[in-house]
Amino acid sequence: MTVRGILGTHPRPSALDRDLLVRCIDECIECAASCTSCADADLAEPGAQELVRCTRLCLDCADVCDATRNVLIRQTEPDLGVLRATTETCAVTCRACADECEKHASHHEHCRICAETCRACAAACEDLLATF
Amino acid sequence: MTVRGILGTHPRPSALDRDLLVRCIDECIECAASCTSCADADLAEPGAQELVRCTRLCLDCADVCDATRNVLIRQTEPDLGVLRATTETCAVTCRACADECEKHASHHEHCRICAETCRACAAACEDLLATF
Amino acid sequence: MTVRGILGTHPRPSALDRDLLVRCIDECIECAASCTSCADADLAEPGAQELVRCTRLCLDCADVCDATRNVLIRQTEPDLGVLRATTETCAVTCRACADECEKHASHHEHCRICAETCRACAAACEDLLATF
Amino acid sequence: MTVRGILGTHPRPSALDRDLLVRCIDECIECAASCTSCADADLAEPGAQELVRCTRLCLDCADVCDATRNVLIRQTEPDLGVLRATTETCAVTCRACADECEKHASHHEHCRICAETCRACAAACEDLLATF
Repeated sequence: MTVRGILGTHPRPSALDRDLLVRCIDECIECAASCTSCADADLAEPGAQELVRCTRLCLDCADVCDATRNVLIRQTEPDLGVLRATTETCAVTCRACADECEKHASHHEHCRICAETCRACAAACEDLLATF
Repeated sequence: MTVRGILGTHPRPSALDRDLLVRCIDECIECAASCTSCADADLAEPGAQELVRCTRLCLDCADVCDATRNVLIRQTEPDLGVLRATTETCAVTCRACADECEKHASHHEHCRICAETCRACAAACEDLLATF
Repeated sequence: MTVRGILGTHPRPSALDRDLLVRCIDECIECAASCTSCADADLAEPGAQELVRCTRLCLDCADVCDATRNVLIRQTEPDLGVLRATTETCAVTCRACADECEKHASHHEHCRICAETCRACAAACEDLLATF
Repeated sequence: MTVRGILGTHPRPSALDRDLLVRCIDECIECAASCTSCADADLAEPGAQELVRCTRLCLDCADVCDATRNVLIRQTEPDLGVLRATTETCAVTCRACADECEKHASHHEHCRICAETCRACAAACEDLLATF
C-alpha cells in the first residue's frame, strides 16, 4: 500500500503504533469500497426491498470509513480526542453494518463478503484504540 | 434549504425532531464548506507555518461534517447507535477545530468566521443528541 | 453562506468571477444534499424497484457535487484545467440526474425537487464555465 | 481487493471490461490515499511554503479520485456519459497532480511516491476510457 511508503517518509509522523495504524487505514479503505459495492449490489437484487436496511447502513459505513481513513492518514499535529472519537465511531458503524449484512449472508454472497470486511475494520479500529 | 423540502416528502421519515435535525444537517453543511475554505486560506497565508494545526483540524472537521451530514440526511431504517456515535464525534471534532481557529481569530478573519461556524455546528449536534 | 465570507478574507483569491463562483459552490452544496436525500427517499418508496436508476444517479451526483464543491472552494494556486474538467463533469452529471429524476417528478415530490436542484446546479456550472 | 470479490457476485454487473475496471478502481483508491498522505506530509515540511501548489493539487486529486472510485464501483444502471466524464476528469486531475509532485520528487520522497501513484491512476483511467 502506498500509504505505508509515504508514512515512512513523513517529516513529523505521529506517535501512534505504525503497524496498527497502517492496518486500520487499510481496513477503512477496504471497508469503504466494500460497502459502496454492497449497497450497489443490493439495489440490483430482485429482493432489494428486504435489503433496504443493509443498503442504508452500507452507505453510512462507507461515509464513516472514508472520514476515518483521512483522519488516520494525517500525521501532522494530531488531536487525540478527534482520533479517538472518529475511530470509535468507525468501530460502532462497522459493527452495525456487519450485523445487518450477516443476516443476508446466506442468500447474498456480496453481503457475506461485506460483513467480513466490516468485522475486520471494526477489529482494526478496536486494536488501534487500545493503544491510545 | 432543499433538504427540508425533501424530508417533508419522505415516505418513511425517522422519528427525530425535524427542526433540530434540519438545523444540524444545515450546520454540518456550513461547517464542512467553512473548514474546507479556512484550510485553503491558511495555505495561502504568509505565516502558514503557524497555522498548520489549524489547517489539519479544518481538514479533519470537513471530513467528519460531510459524513455526519449524510448519516443525518438519511431517514430510512436509521440505526440510533450509529447516529449517536457520528453526531457525538462531529461535536467533538467541531469543538477541537473551533478551539484552534479561535487562537488565530484576531489575526485571520477566516479563522474567526470558521471558529463561529464550528461552534454553531457543535451546538446543533449537542442539541440534537439531547433528544436521542 | 459562510463560504462567501471566508472567500472575502482569503489572502490570495483566484481570478474567477466571485458571484458566479459562490453561486456554483452554493448549488453544488444544495445538489449534493438534495441527491443524498432523494436517493434515501427512493429506498423507502414502495415502488423502489422502479427508482433504481434514479437512486444510482443521485448517489453519483452527490459524489461529483461534493468533489466539485471542494475544488471550487479552494482559491490557492488553482489549476484551470482541473477546474474546467471538474466543473464540466459536474454539469454532465447533474443533467443526467435531472433527466432521470424528472421522469418520476409527477409521482414523487422528492424527485421533482431534486430534478430542479440538479438543473440549477448544472446551469451554475455552465455559467461559471463560460468565464474560463 | 474486496471489490473484485463483490463485483463477481453482483446480480447485474455493467458491461465494462472487468480487469480494466477493477484496476482503475484500485488505482483511484491508492491515489486518493496517497494524495491525502502527501498533502499532509507537505504541511509538516520545513519548506511547506514551496509545496503549497502541491498540497492544493493533492487535496483536489484525492477528492476527484474518491468520487471516481464510487462512480466506477457502482454497476447498477450505469450512465456512460457520467462514467466517461468522471473518468476523464480523474485522468486530467491525476496528470496535473503528478506534474506538480514530480517537481519536488528529488527533495521529498513522499512527492516522488505520490507522483508515481498519480501517473498509474491516470494511465488506468485512460486504458479504461479507451474501451468506452
